[in-house]
Amino acid sequence: MPERVLDIPTPALVVDVAAMDRNVRRMAAFFSTGPCRLRPHVKAHKTREIARRQLAAGGCVGLTCATVSEAEVVAPLGASILLANEPVGSGKCDRLAALARGREIIAAVDSDAGVDELAGAARRAGVRIGVLVDINVGQMRCGVEPGPDAVRLARRVAHTAGLALRGLMGYEGHVQPVADRAERETRARRAMGELVGMAQLLRDAGLPCEIVSGGGTGTYDISGRVDGVTEVQAGSYVLMDSDYGRLDLPFEQAFWVLGTVISRPDPTRCVADCGHKAVTKDHGLPAVRDLEGATVVALNDEHATIALPAGASLQVGDRVFLRPSHTDPTINLHDVFYAIEGDRVVDVWPIAARGYPEHRNGARVR
Amino acid sequence: MPERVLDIPTPALVVDVAAMDRNVRRMAAFFSTGPCRLRPHVKAHKTREIARRQLAAGGCVGLTCATVSEAEVVAPLGASILLANEPVGSGKCDRLAALARGREIIAAVDSDAGVDELAGAARRAGVRIGVLVDINVGQMRCGVEPGPDAVRLARRVAHTAGLALRGLMGYEGHVQPVADRAERETRARRAMGELVGMAQLLRDAGLPCEIVSGGGTGTYDISGRVDGVTEVQAGSYVLMDSDYGRLDLPFEQAFWVLGTVISRPDPTRCVADCGHKAVTKDHGLPAVRDLEGATVVALNDEHATIALPAGASLQVGDRVFLRPSHTDPTINLHDVFYAIEGDRVVDVWPIAARGYPEHRNGARVR
Repeated sequence: MPERVLDIPTPALVVDVAAMDRNVRRMAAFFSTGPCRLRPHVKAHKTREIARRQLAAGGCVGLTCATVSEAEVVAPLGASILLANEPVGSGKCDRLAALARGREIIAAVDSDAGVDELAGAARRAGVRIGVLVDINVGQMRCGVEPGPDAVRLARRVAHTAGLALRGLMGYEGHVQPVADRAERETRARRAMGELVGMAQLLRDAGLPCEIVSGGGTGTYDISGRVDGVTEVQAGSYVLMDSDYGRLDLPFEQAFWVLGTVISRPDPTRCVADCGHKAVTKDHGLPAVRDLEGATVVALNDEHATIALPAGASLQVGDRVFLRPSHTDPTINLHDVFYAIEGDRVVDVWPIAARGYPEHRNGARVR
Repeated sequence: MPERVLDIPTPALVVDVAAMDRNVRRMAAFFSTGPCRLRPHVKAHKTREIARRQLAAGGCVGLTCATVSEAEVVAPLGASILLANEPVGSGKCDRLAALARGREIIAAVDSDAGVDELAGAARRAGVRIGVLVDINVGQMRCGVEPGPDAVRLARRVAHTAGLALRGLMGYEGHVQPVADRAERETRARRAMGELVGMAQLLRDAGLPCEIVSGGGTGTYDISGRVDGVTEVQAGSYVLMDSDYGRLDLPFEQAFWVLGTVISRPDPTRCVADCGHKAVTKDHGLPAVRDLEGATVVALNDEHATIALPAGASLQVGDRVFLRPSHTDPTINLHDVFYAIEGDRVVDVWPIAARGYPEHRNGARVR
């Protein structure tokens, strides 16, 4: 393990442990009051050590995952895991069912085929898997439309051996990035209102609906205070990015992509070794930290071209810190976090759920 | 190893071996005539087995890499390796120097600091590293401006112990995607004309300039026929993408992202499990294969939302093949290629240079 930030091979991900812990504590404090709890989303960081700190801070009812691999990586922590996604195909349900032996596993469904796959796996493993019916609350991605179809699917779950109907989820993902607070509040409340109304429909039909799960970093304090929402799936708050940084959120930027200047061709620009294989641009180009007026103007595979202000002293070999525009896919490019305190590296955390680790076992070494 | 495509866990990368081999043979045939040779770029695929096939097909003078890790992964093939990038900082030059014990290693420089780092590593390892001076031929990324500064830097290389001045490189990356053939020809010839002119300046100054390296998939048959260009660094041709597919190139799409339909919420759309953690959108959204009228309309972390034509029969559990818009960063998301022939999986190839593998050794398992 390198001792100092200067010794870290670049490009690399660094996390400011103190800033991250402050984010974790702020969110935990919010969810330690009131009936709604936090179920932090692992997809943002894919790192067991970060999930461990989120759980330890309190206010949590368990963890949220988007892939079975994420669930496998955080399973040793023992917490309840919600796969807030439809597990379909290629043995995903069997892998989930295997995890249900040691901890609570809950998964989303929005189709009869999905119910059948999950139930088959639960029966083969001799376990019971919790189920949330996924409701489309306006994101127009997965999810059943609120109404009688959703009641029908929930009833089917409730009557299927191996499954336990636990409630509903509905992710208002389309509302997360809305910068105007008033508009974000209105739209998040409308989406969660649909979800809570749907929960009432289930209960009216005599079906259990203990869990009503939604929300994200942009709406945690809106959706998390809607009466009837029982848990919030926020993830990005723990490390943040410049896209969420546009909003009025009480969380700090806590991770960066560390690069090295490899070229300084003229006074107006330099090139660092952290291109879009190290930091994504799907939410825009990253920003340069600690260098007023410096702007990333292009990202190629292994190059970040940075326009420099007059008189910038950056030289070949100097370090740069880039602030990513999008947490999740940037972290997914890397295998480890270097945990830092000031200039010191205090730990290295494997991003063990990066990518699709299930494939690595199948590969022959050549 | 799964036996059939149907058995591959999704999302996954699949490569049609026959189509890829046809691409490899077409490019090798082009470079088997004429004085200019191919130096296929490993950054596109990061996979030793694919590099092996490229070398075996002939027409090659060696391989091109963008990172030291790529060089380490293909080093066992024994071919000459050009790091077409400036190695600066964090022990990169020492790792390169270690490779120079068993094969020819050539690296790019564009600064005095870069020359010093490389020379220091060569001397510590007791090896000689070849050097190309990187020339800015209009991409405005790395590279010295053509002219006296470049001659000065080349002379410094020639007079530095541990280094051997081999020539010049200049990548006309800005010309690769130009769709209009005539314009692409004009601009590539202009860029390569600057590079060849610069080579003459070196020779006039009494300096060696045996290698003049440039070109890519979009310009291989333009730059590769400019008198004085000795090698072309094309990479994407071997697997292709929809962005290069817009051009008039004789190469076939040879790889896809394989996904599974996890949701079919209504007749007009479905959602597959291959989001932008499985296929990038930096060159646009991927295309759907074998399904006329189907269009990817959104990519989230783990979801591809696909708009469907009327009457589409796609159901939950069905497989989809997405054609990526950008080869390099998409492959960089994955750990293996499933090599397929028709419906059969014939091999699994590790994408061993994915990401920045040097960090994996430094991580403690927690």
